[in-house]
Amino acid sequence: MKIICNKADLVKGVSIVSKAVPSKTTMPILECILIDATTDIIRLTANDMELGIQTEIAGWIEDRGMIAIDARIFSEIVRKLPDNEITIETDENLQTVITCEKAKFDISGKPGDEFSYLPVIEKENSIEVSQFTLKELIRQTIFSISDSESNKMMGGELFEIKDNILRVVSLDGHRISIRKIELKEETEDKKLIVPGKTLIEISKILSGEAESMVNISYTSNHIVFEFDQTIVVSRLIEGEYFKIDQMLSSDYETKVRINKKELLNCIDRATLLIKEGDKKPIIIQIGDEWMELKIKSQIGSMNEEITIEKEGKDLMIGFNPKFLIDALRVIDDEEVTLYLMNAKAPCFIKDEEESYIYLILPVNFNAAV
Amino acid sequence: MKIICNKADLVKGVSIVSKAVPSKTTMPILECILIDATTDIIRLTANDMELGIQTEIAGWIEDRGMIAIDARIFSEIVRKLPDNEITIETDENLQTVITCEKAKFDISGKPGDEFSYLPVIEKENSIEVSQFTLKELIRQTIFSISDSESNKMMGGELFEIKDNILRVVSLDGHRISIRKIELKEETEDKKLIVPGKTLIEISKILSGEAESMVNISYTSNHIVFEFDQTIVVSRLIEGEYFKIDQMLSSDYETKVRINKKELLNCIDRATLLIKEGDKKPIIIQIGDEWMELKIKSQIGSMNEEITIEKEGKDLMIGFNPKFLIDALRVIDDEEVTLYLMNAKAPCFIKDEEESYIYLILPVNFNAAV
Repeated sequence: MKIICNKADLVKGVSIVSKAVPSKTTMPILECILIDATTDIIRLTANDMELGIQTEIAGWIEDRGMIAIDARIFSEIVRKLPDNEITIETDENLQTVITCEKAKFDISGKPGDEFSYLPVIEKENSIEVSQFTLKELIRQTIFSISDSESNKMMGGELFEIKDNILRVVSLDGHRISIRKIELKEETEDKKLIVPGKTLIEISKILSGEAESMVNISYTSNHIVFEFDQTIVVSRLIEGEYFKIDQMLSSDYETKVRINKKELLNCIDRATLLIKEGDKKPIIIQIGDEWMELKIKSQIGSMNEEITIEKEGKDLMIGFNPKFLIDALRVIDDEEVTLYLMNAKAPCFIKDEEESYIYLILPVNFNAAV
Repeated sequence: MKIICNKADLVKGVSIVSKAVPSKTTMPILECILIDATTDIIRLTANDMELGIQTEIAGWIEDRGMIAIDARIFSEIVRKLPDNEITIETDENLQTVITCEKAKFDISGKPGDEFSYLPVIEKENSIEVSQFTLKELIRQTIFSISDSESNKMMGGELFEIKDNILRVVSLDGHRISIRKIELKEETEDKKLIVPGKTLIEISKILSGEAESMVNISYTSNHIVFEFDQTIVVSRLIEGEYFKIDQMLSSDYETKVRINKKELLNCIDRATLLIKEGDKKPIIIQIGDEWMELKIKSQIGSMNEEITIEKEGKDLMIGFNPKFLIDALRVIDDEEVTLYLMNAKAPCFIKDEEESYIYLILPVNFNAAV
């Protein structure tokens, strides 16, 4: 094989597919990137068997062929070469010579046919959203997946298509995050559980442009994201997702409208009195036109008052401050509305159209604080 | 005590003195910052008994007094408070209330008189350099101090004043770094060994402005740096520094003039074939108008040719690539000159005025590579 590419194109392509290279594996071939120039197109592929990414890069093919090269070494080499044309040439012993200007690297490759190709997916159905929208959907929900090994389902996000609405849901047992968008084209109802890792990696690759579209197609086992020159294929998590609708309620006794940044900064300040792993709640006392936040730990105590608009009853309720911070950080609105029932019932943060809903369970606290 | 300061001033002051707060200590009082408002000036001080820093901050003193507060907590609190006036008030039980807008923190302090004040230094002699110059002197030499516990001297830098020249020297047994500057005023000859930690921390505080001066005064045990509203006092390392002049030589058999960036990038690329702790040398072969750099490891091999201007003999020599990189990174010249004798003798990188000299010992290599 002999190919010539521009450094910038190669760096970009390698960086995209590297997201699917496993950090630990017992199969050395999976630590490689496959360079496939057997056709008229240069394709880079990485595949950890759960998640596979393939991307096309521009370049000239002088000799067709393919080679698998250690992803870490290859990525470091191309990154550090001068900004110029890079030639990659392999011989029959899989020795690979990478040349750029006067710099010449000589490393050994692995046979390309040992590499696991991406599975071929029969696309049954598909939807289309912009790169911007997908990136936002992920950012605004991914923080409440759970990384516990005991419940695989919580490590994924529900992508539910129903009545041409895409609803993305994540939950970890203490909170639920929901984002909804309308789809432009009629689509059959469907539920998919996408692994969190897939979404995290894809979100790093997405440019986030509002004009550039992502085609998302799926079968009962796989989901495929296609955008720019890239294809991301991931296994789905099998099983039935949690029934979340019965946990959502639109009843409330107290409704609070508050400046988001003010609330976020205040909770953020309060957390510095808590050490990692220390489960001190932040206590929120809601009065007529004010809300008082209090926290107390061995280090000291903190309290602060914030002006609010309130409807309904006064209330005192405790939360894990991290859960409030996580939700408030990803909401783009300047003002947010909190809906509360009592000190034992979940708090809902949502907008009027319910394009986002964050449910957070309260925690017990000692009222004497 | 009751004082009122602007957040920005307080954050800046706390950040300066925090550099002298030890990360580990058996004396809890040393983990504190002393706020001293017993006079008309608000002073912050931290002191780990080797290095002490004091800085003045603007503010109003409503009630004179002093208090020692845990440096980490205090620094996090002031950083996260709103950008406004901060009031710090203590009561007779050393409870300290920090208020800013509607946020109120309550933490406990320690008695200020338990705190170790900076030692009072009888200034015998002093020199003056700009913040820019001092920061550069440190940056261009600090990388070749040694952090080995076995030789305390190598953990410091020699500040040698002789014939109104300040020469700063560091060495670690494999290399020597030297920077020289002319002093503006007549000064008595003197040798001081300043701890590396002091120089690293001071370099973080220095603004690096060319117009702002640093007054450096010293006794046989201490060195004092005064600049802006800040005083840094450090113990000196006792003893006699290495005799370096006998290691310096101006003889050479080969002189090479080379583009610095090209050489640096080439060595930097070569190092990615070496794993951490792996002692593979980079082999440099010097020919008439070219220099070839080669490296070989288990991962693969790399070679590259660079155009040079040469005087004298051809030569093949091996180096630890890191030592070359460290020196080349801090040299500001576009072109550098290497002076070499043979494969066993040190290489010198220096400018014509010898305002900088980097001596690097070669390493053995297998010529068959």
